[in-house]
Parts: sequence; structure tokens; C-alpha cells
Amino acid sequence: MKLTGQQLIGQSSFSASGTLIWAINPATGEKLQPGYLSGGHSEVLHACKLAEAASVPFRTTSLEERATFLETIATEIEALGADLIKRCSLETGLPAARIEGERGRTCGQLRLFASVVRAGEWLDARIEPALPERKPLPRTDLRQQNIALGPVAVFGASNFPLAFSVAGGDTASALAAGCPVIVKAHSAHPGTSEMVGRALQNAVTKCQLPEGVFSLLYGSGNELGQALVKDPRIKAVGFTGSRNGGVALMKTAQARPYPIPVYAEMSSINPVFLLPNALKAQSVSLAEGFVTSLSMGAGQFCTNPGLVLAVRGKDLDQFLTTAEKAISKVGAQTMLTPGIHQAYTNGIISLANNDSVQLQGKGKISDLPNLCQSSLFVTKANDFLVDEKLRDEVFGACSLVIECDDFEQMLTVAKQLEGQLTATLHMDDSDLQAAKGLLPILEDTAGRVLVNGWPTGVEVCHAMVHGGPFPATSDSRSSSVGSSAINRFLRPVCYQNLPQALLPETLRDNNPVGISHLFDGKRVSKTVK
Amino acid sequence: MKLTGQQLIGQSSFSASGTLIWAINPATGEKLQPGYLSGGHSEVLHACKLAEAASVPFRTTSLEERATFLETIATEIEALGADLIKRCSLETGLPAARIEGERGRTCGQLRLFASVVRAGEWLDARIEPALPERKPLPRTDLRQQNIALGPVAVFGASNFPLAFSVAGGDTASALAAGCPVIVKAHSAHPGTSEMVGRALQNAVTKCQLPEGVFSLLYGSGNELGQALVKDPRIKAVGFTGSRNGGVALMKTAQARPYPIPVYAEMSSINPVFLLPNALKAQSVSLAEGFVTSLSMGAGQFCTNPGLVLAVRGKDLDQFLTTAEKAISKVGAQTMLTPGIHQAYTNGIISLANNDSVQLQGKGKISDLPNLCQSSLFVTKANDFLVDEKLRDEVFGACSLVIECDDFEQMLTVAKQLEGQLTATLHMDDSDLQAAKGLLPILEDTAGRVLVNGWPTGVEVCHAMVHGGPFPATSDSRSSSVGSSAINRFLRPVCYQNLPQALLPETLRDNNPVGISHLFDGKRVSKTVK
Repeated sequence: MKLTGQQLIGQSSFSASGTLIWAINPATGEKLQPGYLSGGHSEVLHACKLAEAASVPFRTTSLEERATFLETIATEIEALGADLIKRCSLETGLPAARIEGERGRTCGQLRLFASVVRAGEWLDARIEPALPERKPLPRTDLRQQNIALGPVAVFGASNFPLAFSVAGGDTASALAAGCPVIVKAHSAHPGTSEMVGRALQNAVTKCQLPEGVFSLLYGSGNELGQALVKDPRIKAVGFTGSRNGGVALMKTAQARPYPIPVYAEMSSINPVFLLPNALKAQSVSLAEGFVTSLSMGAGQFCTNPGLVLAVRGKDLDQFLTTAEKAISKVGAQTMLTPGIHQAYTNGIISLANNDSVQLQGKGKISDLPNLCQSSLFVTKANDFLVDEKLRDEVFGACSLVIECDDFEQMLTVAKQLEGQLTATLHMDDSDLQAAKGLLPILEDTAGRVLVNGWPTGVEVCHAMVHGGPFPATSDSRSSSVGSSAINRFLRPVCYQNLPQALLPETLRDNNPVGISHLFDGKRVSKTVK
Repeated sequence: MKLTGQQLIGQSSFSASGTLIWAINPATGEKLQPGYLSGGHSEVLHACKLAEAASVPFRTTSLEERATFLETIATEIEALGADLIKRCSLETGLPAARIEGERGRTCGQLRLFASVVRAGEWLDARIEPALPERKPLPRTDLRQQNIALGPVAVFGASNFPLAFSVAGGDTASALAAGCPVIVKAHSAHPGTSEMVGRALQNAVTKCQLPEGVFSLLYGSGNELGQALVKDPRIKAVGFTGSRNGGVALMKTAQARPYPIPVYAEMSSINPVFLLPNALKAQSVSLAEGFVTSLSMGAGQFCTNPGLVLAVRGKDLDQFLTTAEKAISKVGAQTMLTPGIHQAYTNGIISLANNDSVQLQGKGKISDLPNLCQSSLFVTKANDFLVDEKLRDEVFGACSLVIECDDFEQMLTVAKQLEGQLTATLHMDDSDLQAAKGLLPILEDTAGRVLVNGWPTGVEVCHAMVHGGPFPATSDSRSSSVGSSAINRFLRPVCYQNLPQALLPETLRDNNPVGISHLFDGKRVSKTVK
């Protein structure tokens, strides 16, 4: 595919007139052709008007039509073939195998949402038939289901150029819900974005959907994104990125005359608790597993284990010595962008210059540009508790081990942590009582609690929660990964006493679509009436 | 019960030291004893600390324990007997029969939530067992359920002194979710609030729950309420009241270091669309039904039909003439508070002084204080479209009829309306095509769409949505009435690879609690392994 550097609005492409955006190959520092001219208010207005026009026709497509559309997007992305892998690798510095895996995940989640749409659980259909004889007052017929919120603005993430970008989880779940989507491409991978955007355009054509179902805009700085979130036609926002970026969007969305929900996945240091008996029995294997999780993909995961808590003593010493040895063998990896590399370097310097923090170990490094040197630091719980800076995320392969005086102090630290995407316990059977003490704190802190594993590696499935209390996300009631991500873009509507011919098909008598309902509050599958 | 004028914090009562709050009998203007001393920051802090301490023990009670607690509250409220009805009637001017009905509804919804808690649908339990043999990567065991957000602040409403107040829908649904509740009593019915608050205290004692599960605070002005919403221990807010009040709480909640959700039910004019064939066939009966709905309870319902749209012509003239006659027979009714009466009077004067609005009819009136004289006005769609003031809610028995040039203009007005709790269609079979054209607009506008009925009278059931886009509520994704109201106070947590002994009982193998699950994405009832 020949890249054009144009904005994709509906079924058309346009050259905008703002600043040029260039992808940089982080492994070499070179600019990649073509440049992308930033759009502004007029591109936002155009895309939003098309999205508004597509809103009702798209949300009232049948479950089958919408599922087929999602599957068609997956097929069109796969049809991009090796070109996509090559361009994406150039733009991100990520190895081809990783991008291939991510493409599989991206297409897999589109197909998962197709199955979710067909199953219809997301409708939360409820039927309460009329009770004309009820005393003292009759009951009229009442039915409820979820409907799409309307056009959604999606901000692609830099660290998952496919799975959290143009056709990533936010887009897939919003489309599944029946919402038109306008994506603001991440400026670090504009070519990848254009390729996937054109695949999406093709899917819209093939499925004969209104063109406003999808647009892809490019903009440098915050202007285009802010204009998008301010547009009154936009009804919700999906974002994955920095805490500052997410909080800015939250403020804009709340300041609108009509405030809208923002689903921002922002910042998490993913604490790992090594309980005493597990640490005693497995200090070596835990340390090795930890370093593998920590350094995978240069640590550029939202679920990177950035904090490890354990009680001081010879078991922890053994863990640290092993981790130091393991990290020393970790090769340097190219980071996604010069900006991310600079932020990582600043974070490491800040930790190294902190008097209460000791450097425990470092990975390999060379002179190539934008390399991540894995880093491991240690501090004392007493210091961690009084220094808020130590709780900041350092995005990359860096982690801080907290030495606690005892288990009570570990609980104290746990209670003071901000909201997290994940919290991990390493335990064996004899740690059960300690784990029971920690669990309620971790439930209040994180969207996912895991035992005897590592938080990197997020399964795309029905039971996944990739979310958590602020600042992990802007809305702890949601997940941005897995089938429940669709819930973010829905609202319930009650239909009272509607004739069958006016009711949505999914709520009609005899359950023609065959979905599970609550009938008079009781769960009924398939056939109702 | 002897009223004390004290703040109920946990299991204790305290006299505060702020301004005195007096209930006023709106039918006579007299002060009712005792006065209630306003609380402030120290009362908020005390109640919040107790609520925080109760948070984990309460959310981890069994489904049966929590259901029994809700039923005990209902029993304790019923045990207040005629004293409650008498005091509530004095404080609100509402007739005893209405209060008795509202008590039935209040206790009914507590018992509904007990059944909801037991059924466990609200947990949205999901199980995906480990697939150790999966290629290329095995899958670990993943389970998900909803858990309580934490302590909730509830602001009682003036117009439902039982059903939307101390033990009303917000409190019942938050307790059902497992959240401790701190209620700020509405200053218009402090005595009613104390009686119900003491019933709640008794239920906490009888069920041996931690005392912080419930507190009841009194405060004049905004100070106490603002302090409550700012407290870091509070995790969500339920509010029913004015648009200004709700928006102020939204801003406070968003400005916190840790923003929290606010569920504010605020403002709605509940448009009613009279489609041509229905209007032709039933202009007289529609007019009579309309005036009954409009004037019921002095129009002090969130779902009062404040706007009627129809195409001009002799059928609409017949409707207006009949409505004028019907409203002239409507007796004046005492409004809830002098403040509400004053606001109603101001709203009526503003409409009467608007050059593009004509007075169509008025109800009866006398010299007693705080009476609502029902009022019906008419204007043209062209004027309505350009005068935003005409879209403001006039809380009370007032409605505005919009004469449209044709059906297209009715659609234009519908598209310009702000968010609503309800939208009503009157139609017969031959109006079906017109109704199909309107329906998508109404779905986007309102939380409940109803046909051939009137919006007043909100059934408490599973399929009800009492919600809608801003400014009807602060969060269109929610309902404040019916079993789905519990969803407002929940967030999902994923449990990855937890040993059975550490898992919540509701997610264990063999489904010991017997709830419906999604198992590998498929709906399974009762027994899961």
C-alpha cells in the first residue's frame, strides 16, 4: 500500500494544512516518509458530522450485520500482509515477531467482539410483561435494553500500535456497541495508522455501512484532540496514554455543556507482593520470573511490574542477588519513541539521585539511539511511605523493590498505594492467612488481582478487567480489554407499552434473535414469552 | 418516637453546633419542633471514618446477610407506624394516603433489592478456567465479578420524602451493592429523616453489622454536603434535586484528587408527542388524561409532562379546549416547601410575561399559603426553537403545549431537546410510520420511551430506567429506580489464578451460591464447574 499522508474522513482522503507529522525510526533516528499534515477544527467538524449522520443507521444494524463488519475489519487487516508488519516495526522499533503477535491479538479481539455482539449479553435485555389484573394498580408492559451512546473519539496508544490503536480494543468495543468511531492517530506510528485506517474504510464499503462509521484524523499537539472531545456530537472518549494526557481529556469532557464519559487508561506501577513462605521457598525462580516480566518489550507495558514488596531478610537478599544477576544479562532494547526514551532516562536519573534509593542492578547498553537499559532499584518502606515521587510510574524496564520491616508494614504500604491496573501476590499454601489480609486492600486498589504469575500478558477474554481506580484509569467501573469493554459505550433505555412493530427486534415477543433475558427478574435463555 | 434534632452517626446520636434547621408545615407556614443543629466538617469526618471502617466487612457479607439487612430495614420502617405518616405529612403537605403509598413503595423497593442481592445477577460473574494445553500460550484461570465501590454519599430529595430520601432508592441500591451509606437529610423533612434514620440504625444493630454502614447528617446550605463529597473516603454520590445542585456536586467530585462518579437526577420536562391519528381519534380523552397526569401531586414529579407537541389544527384545538376545561376544575394543592412554591410562581410569571406564550388555562386557587395553581400555556414551535428559556423546567403543575406547523417541525423540535427522563408517544396503528421516525430521536433523548400512557408513575422493577442524558441526569449510563440502580455502585475485579480458598465464595468452583455465570462467554445458570 502506498501511504499518502492524508486524513481519512468517511470514505474520502484529504490533505490537511497544519504542521507536518513524521514518524521517526527509533532504532536509527531517521524520518520515515511520508509526512502527515496535521488536521484541525475543519477536519474534526467534517468527521463529526459524518459520524452523527451514521449514528442511528449504524446502531440499528442487526447483531449479525455488526458482527460481520467486525470480522471484515479483521480480514482486511490481515490482507495488509507483510507491509503492515514492516512499516509498524520501522515506526516503533518493535521486532516483527512481536508485531505479528499483536496483529493476531488485534484481529482476535475484533472476532471476539463479533461473537459478543451476536450473543447479545451486552444488551442486558429485560422484559416485564403487563399485569393488567394487578391490584391496587395494573402494571404496563416494560422492556429494557442497552443502546449505543453515539459517536466515540478514540486516541491511539504508542505502545500497542495495533492492539490499542486505530482498530484496537477501544475501536472494536465501540463499534461492537454500535457507536461510530473517530480515531486520532498516535503521531508515533502514522503510517501503521493509515494502513489500518484504509483497511477499516474497506470494511465499511464492503459491509455497505454509512461512511461516517469510521474516520481517522492526524494532529500534532493537543489542538485536534481537544477539538474532537469538545465537539457536541461526540458522546464518549477512549484513551490510552499518559496521566497528564488523560486528565486533560477528563477536564475537557467535564467542562462541556453536555459532559461525556472519558475512559482513559493512564498510569500504573502494578505492585507485586512476595509473601514470606513463597519468597523463602522460591526466591531464585521468583527473581528470574520477575526480571523476565520486567524487561519484556523494554518494559513498555501498562502492566509492567514497577514495584515489588517483601519483608527484609535473607530470602529477600537472595531474591535481590538473583535479580541483579538476571538483569545484568538483559540486552538493551529500542524504545518506542525518542520522547519515551527521554522520559525513561529522566525517571532513572531521578531514582538514582534519590538518597533513599539504591541501585541494585542494570541491564546491558550500547551506543545505539533510544535504547532502554533495564534498571532495578531498592528502597525502604519507611522512605517510600514519605516520598510521593517514588510512586510515580517510570515507563520502561524499571522496578523498585520495597524492603518492609514486617508484614504489617507491607499492609501499610498497600493501603497507601494509588489505584492500579493490577496487583500480584506470590504465595504458597502457608501464606493463605496473610493473603486473606491483603486481598480486600488489593481489591480496592486494582482492577485485577493475580496470584503466582506476572502482570504482563493480558488475556483478551470475558473475565478480564484491564482497569482500576484512578489514576490507573479515569473510571474504575470499566475495562478496556475483554468483552466487558463494550459496556463503556452503552446506556439503558426502557420501552414502556410499545407495540411489537415499534419495539427493537431484540426485545420482541418470542425472542426472535434468541438472546438471554431477565424475564420478570429471572434469567431466561433463548426463548421468552 | 420522640425526635431529638440530633445527627445520627453510626450507632450514636450527637448534637451539632451549626445553624438550626426547622421543618416548616407548608400548609400553615408554622415551624415544626424540634430544630436540627447543622453539622459540619467534624460530623462528616466522623461519619466517613466509620463508613471506611465498615467498608470491607460490609461488602464481604454474604448475599443472604445483606438481603436480610434490607428486609429488616423495611420491617423497621413499617414499625414506625402512623407516627411516620403523620410527621411526614406535616413536613411536606402531602396527604396521608400518598405518604402511605410511598412508604409501601419504599419498603417494596428495599425488598426488591433483597431479592436482587440474592439472585446475584448484579455480580456479573464470569469464569474462564485455565487451559494449560492451549497453544501457543496456555491460559490461566480467570474469574471476574463486581464489587462495591465503597462509601456512598446520598442526598435526599424533597419530593419523595421516603422513596428518594433516607432509605430511598439510592440508599437501598448502594446498601444492596455492599456500600456503606452516609445520607445528608433534606432540610425540608428532618423529622421524617430522623425517624427513618433510627429505623436504619435499628436494622444495623439487629443484623449485627458494623455501625459505619449507615449515618445520617443534617446541614443547612452547601457546606456539609460539599465537605461530604470532598472526603477522600467517599467513592460515589447519589443525588436527586435541582440542576444547579447536581451540577455543583459533579464539579466538586471531578475536582477531587481522586474523582468519583456522581449520579444526579436533576431536570426533565418530559415531552409528550401527540401523533396525528391518535390526536384525531382521542383528543378529548387525551386532554383529560394529560391534565390528570400534569396536576397529580401538584405536579411535583420528575416525570411531570411539562411539554406537549402536536401539529396545529382542529384536533389540537379540541385537545386544548378540553384541557382548559379540565384544568379549571383542578383544586389547588399545597406544595412541598415555600421555596418550591416561590420558584413555581416565578416560573409561571416568566411564562405569562413571555410575548410568544399564551395562557390556555388555570386551575383553582385560594388564599392558603404555598398553593399550586395548575397552569397550561401554549406557544408556537417557531418561537420555542429560538427561545431557550422555554425549555427550562417549571417544577410543579405547569405544562407548555407546542403547536407545530407539521410533523417535520415536530421532529426538528424533538432533535433540539435536551436530555430527558422520559419521552411519550400517543399513537394509533396508523401513526406507526411517524412513530418509527421519532423513535431513534427519542431513544437518544430519554431514558424511557413510552407509548399511550403518561410519564408520571414510575414502576419499581427490573426493566425500569429512571435516567437519561444530561441534564436529566449526570450519567446516562445509569438508572436511579429499579433493580439496575445497583449497577451504579459497583466496579469489576478480575481474579487471576486465585486458589479456591482465597476466591470470593460467589466465584468458586461448583457455584456454591447458585448464581448465573458467563462460563467461557456462555450463559450458565446455577451449577458451574
